[in-house]
Amino acid sequence: MIFSMTPLDKLIAHFEKFPGTGIRQARRFAFHILTLKPEQADELAGLVTSLKNSVVLCPSCYRYYSESGERQPLCSICRNPNRDRSKLLVVARDSDTEAIERSGVYDGLYFILGGTVSLLHNPKDEQRVRSGALLGCLTTRLKEDHLMEVILGFSVSPDGENTARFVENHLEPVLKGTAVSLTHLGRGLSTGSELEYADPETIKSALQSRTK
Amino acid sequence: MIFSMTPLDKLIAHFEKFPGTGIRQARRFAFHILTLKPEQADELAGLVTSLKNSVVLCPSCYRYYSESGERQPLCSICRNPNRDRSKLLVVARDSDTEAIERSGVYDGLYFILGGTVSLLHNPKDEQRVRSGALLGCLTTRLKEDHLMEVILGFSVSPDGENTARFVENHLEPVLKGTAVSLTHLGRGLSTGSELEYADPETIKSALQSRTK
Amino acid sequence: MIFSMTPLDKLIAHFEKFPGTGIRQARRFAFHILTLKPEQADELAGLVTSLKNSVVLCPSCYRYYSESGERQPLCSICRNPNRDRSKLLVVARDSDTEAIERSGVYDGLYFILGGTVSLLHNPKDEQRVRSGALLGCLTTRLKEDHLMEVILGFSVSPDGENTARFVENHLEPVLKGTAVSLTHLGRGLSTGSELEYADPETIKSALQSRTK
Amino acid sequence: MIFSMTPLDKLIAHFEKFPGTGIRQARRFAFHILTLKPEQADELAGLVTSLKNSVVLCPSCYRYYSESGERQPLCSICRNPNRDRSKLLVVARDSDTEAIERSGVYDGLYFILGGTVSLLHNPKDEQRVRSGALLGCLTTRLKEDHLMEVILGFSVSPDGENTARFVENHLEPVLKGTAVSLTHLGRGLSTGSELEYADPETIKSALQSRTK
Repeated sequence: MIFSMTPLDKLIAHFEKFPGTGIRQARRFAFHILTLKPEQADELAGLVTSLKNSVVLCPSCYRYYSESGERQPLCSICRNPNRDRSKLLVVARDSDTEAIERSGVYDGLYFILGGTVSLLHNPKDEQRVRSGALLGCLTTRLKEDHLMEVILGFSVSPDGENTARFVENHLEPVLKGTAVSLTHLGRGLSTGSELEYADPETIKSALQSRTK
Repeated sequence: MIFSMTPLDKLIAHFEKFPGTGIRQARRFAFHILTLKPEQADELAGLVTSLKNSVVLCPSCYRYYSESGERQPLCSICRNPNRDRSKLLVVARDSDTEAIERSGVYDGLYFILGGTVSLLHNPKDEQRVRSGALLGCLTTRLKEDHLMEVILGFSVSPDGENTARFVENHLEPVLKGTAVSLTHLGRGLSTGSELEYADPETIKSALQSRTK
Repeated sequence: MIFSMTPLDKLIAHFEKFPGTGIRQARRFAFHILTLKPEQADELAGLVTSLKNSVVLCPSCYRYYSESGERQPLCSICRNPNRDRSKLLVVARDSDTEAIERSGVYDGLYFILGGTVSLLHNPKDEQRVRSGALLGCLTTRLKEDHLMEVILGFSVSPDGENTARFVENHLEPVLKGTAVSLTHLGRGLSTGSELEYADPETIKSALQSRTK
Repeated sequence: MIFSMTPLDKLIAHFEKFPGTGIRQARRFAFHILTLKPEQADELAGLVTSLKNSVVLCPSCYRYYSESGERQPLCSICRNPNRDRSKLLVVARDSDTEAIERSGVYDGLYFILGGTVSLLHNPKDEQRVRSGALLGCLTTRLKEDHLMEVILGFSVSPDGENTARFVENHLEPVLKGTAVSLTHLGRGLSTGSELEYADPETIKSALQSRTK
C-alpha cells in the first residue's frame, strides 16, 4: 500500500497526526497548502525543519523556548533575576506555563513535567513525565536556591489529579525533613461558575477558602 | 385574538412561560398532557393549584419549604438546633441552597435574596431582592444569635458579582462597628477546570488560595 | 417513601415526566409555579384538567384538535371540502402534521399513526401505532373517496425508516390490485446541507431527483 | 515587530492561517512539530514544498490530482473511458467531488469551480471561481462530447445558492439553442432529517420529489 500513496495522501496522513485533527480537516489543510504561494510553502517547510534547532529545551525547567538573539544557557524565566527562586510551580505542559504567565500573578519558577500520568496505568506515560529530571531539579534548587514551596498546578480532571498524586508520591521522600512545603492550586468557584450547578467538591472548596 | 384561542393554545401559552421553554417544547408538553390518564391530569392540576398553600416561605430565611406533617413556624434548617447560628450565607435562589445542602459541608444558616441585581440597572430587580428583609434578618441575628460571619454566595457571573457588590453596599453600614465579618465564597480551579484554558482571574485566585 | 413526599416533591415528579425534562428543569418549573398569581395557577390547572375534554381525536385522521366553537364530527382538515381527498399522508405524530401545514404545500388528507415502530422490536410500540385504524381508514377512503396515493411521511432516521417498512408491509396486501400508489417523501439535499459532508445515500437521492 | 518574531512565533502564524485553526490550536500544532523525530519533520517539510509539483491541476475539470506513476495529461476521472461524457457536474471544491465519488452513484464528468460566489458581492470571489474556464470547457464538450446535461451541485446555503444563480446566469446564453439541459441536485429530506423540524422549503421539495 505504502508504495501507491501519492504525496498528497502522505501529506494528509501527516496532518491527521496533528492534535485534534481528523481526516476531513487534514484534507482541508492539504488543499490549503496547494493554495500557498511557492515562497510561503518554502517558508513553512523551512520552519518545520528548523524548529527544533531554533527552539531550545531549557535544561532547568524543561520549557521549550525560542529566541531570536544570542543563544542563552537558560530560558528567559529561569535566568530572570527578578523571579522568586523560592517557589517552584510544577505543571504538565508548556501551554499551562503560558496561561499562568498571561495571568501575570506568578513570579516564581516553573518545572514542566512534559505530560500527565493517566489513571489507566500506562508505563509509557510515566516515562514521558520527567519525574527523574524533576527530582534532579529539586535537589539542585534545595542546595542552591532557598526553595520554600513546590506548587502542584494540574487540571482538575481525573488525569490531572492522578498526576498530582504521582508527583506527590515521588517528591515526598525528598522533601521530608526539609522546610519545603508542597501545595496545590486552590479550588473554588471559577469564572463562569453557577452556584446552582456547582458540584459538591467545588462548593466545599469555595466554602473552605472563603475570602474577605 | 384572545377569543379565538382554543384551550390547547392557551395551555401551550402557559407552558411557553415556563423557564427555558420555547414554543416547540411547550407544544410537546401540551401533547404530553393529552396522553395522561384523567387521574394523573387531575393530580397534576391539584398540585399546581395547591402548591402555594402547601409551600411556606420561611419568615426567617425566605426559603420555600413544603412539609407533609404539622405546620412549623420556621423551615427545617432555621429551626434545626444543630446548625451553627453564627454563620449566615446569603444566596440568590432556593436552588443555590439546595446545591449547597447537597454538598453537605455547610452547617450555618441561609438567607435567600430571591433574585439577582442585574448589571443593567433595573429598579424592579432591586425590589425583587429582599434587601430590606435581609437587613431586618441581620439586625435580629446580631441581637439574638452570636452572628460572626455573613458569607456572600453568588455565581461568578456579571449579575452574580453585581449582586454581591449591591448586598455589600447595603450591609456595610449595618455591620460597621460589629465583630461580624463579611466574606465571599472562595475562587479557584473548579471541578473540570483545565489549567491551560483558565482565565487570569481564576489562575490568580487559585494561586492565592493554594492549599497544602 | 411515597408517604413522606411533599406536594412540592410530587409536582417535581410530575414535571420530570414531561418530554425532555430532567430533574433540574423540573425543579425550576415547580419554583416557577410558586411565582404564579393564584388566578394564573388556577387557569393552568383548569386547562390541564379539561384539556382532554376540550380536545377531540378526529375519528378519521386521528389528529387531536381543539375548537372554540360548536363541536364538529371531524377535524377542520378532514371536513375541508377544498382538500384533495385522493391523497393520504401517513405521519407519526401531530407535530409532523403541523410542520407540513406550516409549509402550505400539501392539500391532501392525513393519517396520524400516533408513534413510531422502533427498530428494537417492542410489541407495545406496535400497539401504540394505529395500524388497525389505518387499515379501516384506507378501506373507507378506497370506497368513498377516490384515493389515488398513500404517501409515507416519516423522518429519515432508523425508527422513521423502520416505521415506513412496517406500514408498507401492512398496507401492501390491501392496496394490491387497486390503483392506489404507495409513495415516500423525496430525499435529497435539505436546507443547510453541505455537499462536502452529505452522506452517500443523500447524494444518491439528490442525483436521482435532480430538477430543472 | 517582525524582526523580533522567533521561528516558533512564525510557525504559529503559519498554522493560524490553516482553515478552521485558531491561535490555541496553532500553538498546539507548533508544539506537535517539536515532538516529531527529525526524519518526520523533514518528510513533512519536503511534502509541503513539493506538493504543488507533485499535484497537477487537471486542465479539463480543474481538479487537483496527485499520481505516483507516469504523468498523464488529464486526471483519472477525465481520462476514464467508462465515465459518461454526456453529463457534467459543476461543484465548488475538490472536497465536493470526493464526497460524490465516495457515494459511487455518479458516472459523469466534473468541473471544479474553485470556490463559491458569496452573497455579499465581492469581485475577488468572482475572479476565484473559474467561470471563464467553465465556459471554455463547455464549448469544448459541446463540440467533442455529446454533452446532454450540466448539473449544478452546490450546498443548500446562501452562498451555495448564490453560486448556482451566478453560474446559471453565465451558462444560459451558451446553452440557449442547444439540447443541453441545466439541472440542480434534488432537494428533500436528507439522512437524519426529522420531519417535525424540517423547514417549509425542504418539506415542499420532499413532497414534490416523492418516490415509489
